[in-house]
Amino acid sequence: MEFKEYLKEYQNIVNSQLEKCIKKEECPEKILNESMEYSLMAGGKRLRPILVIATYKVFKKDYEICFPYICAIEMLHNFSLIHDDLPEVDNDDFRHGKPTNHKKFNHPTALLAGDGLLNSAYSILADELENSIQKDSKEVLRNKIKALNELSKAIDRVIAGEYVDVLYEGKQVTDDILDYIHINKTGVFLKACVRIGAILANASEEDIEKLSKYADKIGLAFQIKDDILSEEGDSKITGKPVGNDKELGKCTYVSKYGLEGAKEKLNQITKEAIEELESYGEKIEFLKQLANYIKDRNK
Amino acid sequence: MEFKEYLKEYQNIVNSQLEKCIKKEECPEKILNESMEYSLMAGGKRLRPILVIATYKVFKKDYEICFPYICAIEMLHNFSLIHDDLPEVDNDDFRHGKPTNHKKFNHPTALLAGDGLLNSAYSILADELENSIQKDSKEVLRNKIKALNELSKAIDRVIAGEYVDVLYEGKQVTDDILDYIHINKTGVFLKACVRIGAILANASEEDIEKLSKYADKIGLAFQIKDDILSEEGDSKITGKPVGNDKELGKCTYVSKYGLEGAKEKLNQITKEAIEELESYGEKIEFLKQLANYIKDRNK
Repeated sequence: MEFKEYLKEYQNIVNSQLEKCIKKEECPEKILNESMEYSLMAGGKRLRPILVIATYKVFKKDYEICFPYICAIEMLHNFSLIHDDLPEVDNDDFRHGKPTNHKKFNHPTALLAGDGLLNSAYSILADELENSIQKDSKEVLRNKIKALNELSKAIDRVIAGEYVDVLYEGKQVTDDILDYIHINKTGVFLKACVRIGAILANASEEDIEKLSKYADKIGLAFQIKDDILSEEGDSKITGKPVGNDKELGKCTYVSKYGLEGAKEKLNQITKEAIEELESYGEKIEFLKQLANYIKDRNK
Repeated sequence: MEFKEYLKEYQNIVNSQLEKCIKKEECPEKILNESMEYSLMAGGKRLRPILVIATYKVFKKDYEICFPYICAIEMLHNFSLIHDDLPEVDNDDFRHGKPTNHKKFNHPTALLAGDGLLNSAYSILADELENSIQKDSKEVLRNKIKALNELSKAIDRVIAGEYVDVLYEGKQVTDDILDYIHINKTGVFLKACVRIGAILANASEEDIEKLSKYADKIGLAFQIKDDILSEEGDSKITGKPVGNDKELGKCTYVSKYGLEGAKEKLNQITKEAIEELESYGEKIEFLKQLANYIKDRNK
């Protein structure tokens, strides 16, 4: 299969797993569940869950063990998007080309939909662990617990990064703070996804560390590309208004290094990410191509 | 020791455990950590953690095993308070006699402080499980995982209850919806605390079920008393404005049954809660008195 076919297949797997997590029953909070579903199924790239599956597959074949984690991860990602978009934070009206959650529903519903997705992620993993202790070996259970811990620590950082982003909005920032925001908001989460895939596959500490270096680099590449798209992307394709960062006076890699400087940095860092994987064989091909995909994407 | 001395001792234990969870280091998100600390240490009754310890102590003595859970529980409780108080939800200016989080800090900080407390709760429990798999027996680990699952499911319900509360604000509601809101917002969480204490103490299914019935009743009593205090409490003592519920057109047990009717219901349900515990001996005394404390409290 070609890279794009794999990508499509993985996206389909993620979407069908997410469908199973959504509560559809008649209940007084039905609209809250619908608003959670609205954001969850609004059509993201599913990059984080795909990183889990693709990394897992470097070591092992049957990746069903990843399913509760990929659902939790995509829920946590969407929690952060919904809360980031709120009027008191970025005040964004569009996401993935659709009205943001608070625009489609309303402000308190979006607040609670974000809360709901954040909590449901852990609720799913708690079920998974309770199930696991009945049937799995101690080694498998230990890996599942470690994966939960990686994830919770990453989300602690996502929230801290978002706070620092808000704190410095419209202000000049040092390179250190710019890096801090992006490493925390984006990089740590992407790295956690790679590590979770490797941990669930029972990879060695050495492999986990090597893959973490790759993940650090694609995390940075991802953020630089995001900033470039926010500056010169096609809003019909990105689904987000272009020039919004500039308008808000946000610190980005483009505001810091200029458009050309940011593109150069993106190329360099993508090359370095791929080089981290050299010692692995053919099985790593998808992760290499994923680095290029992050660099070349138009949304 | 008298009931009040025990209560004070338990509150001190909870507070000293919470102190250990607070991040104090210099970092770009320092103010976010301070805002989480502000709400966490603002001086609540610590009823939920105390329910965990007191229930645990019906079965076993050394209750250190409860510590990560009581911290997580109080963090989750404060997450829900911070988000409930936000301008787009209840728009409350005071809590425990102090400015609410968004009044003391600002709107985005309060949003992210709530998110941070919600996530940190699971982060603490993930650490605890990773620690547990190294050192504990399978039985102890299983109980810890079950306790995590109880908690995550309860918070799913707290968020749903809060949503339904917002949805019906200012509207006439049926008895069913009024019960639904309070069972989900308050009752399920209090019950989870009792169950978690019993689960961690490795209590039998039968004991867990019996205590759950007690918990259902004190949960209802708690909410009725809250509604009464909101109507006729002393705002200097409750720390919350009096008459706020009425002003917002909120559905409460007082608006439904009248002040006298609510008080009658409170007395009846407290009596029933205590009766559920008859078959236990002296060890249950604190939980019995706690039911009276919930009924008689003035804040």
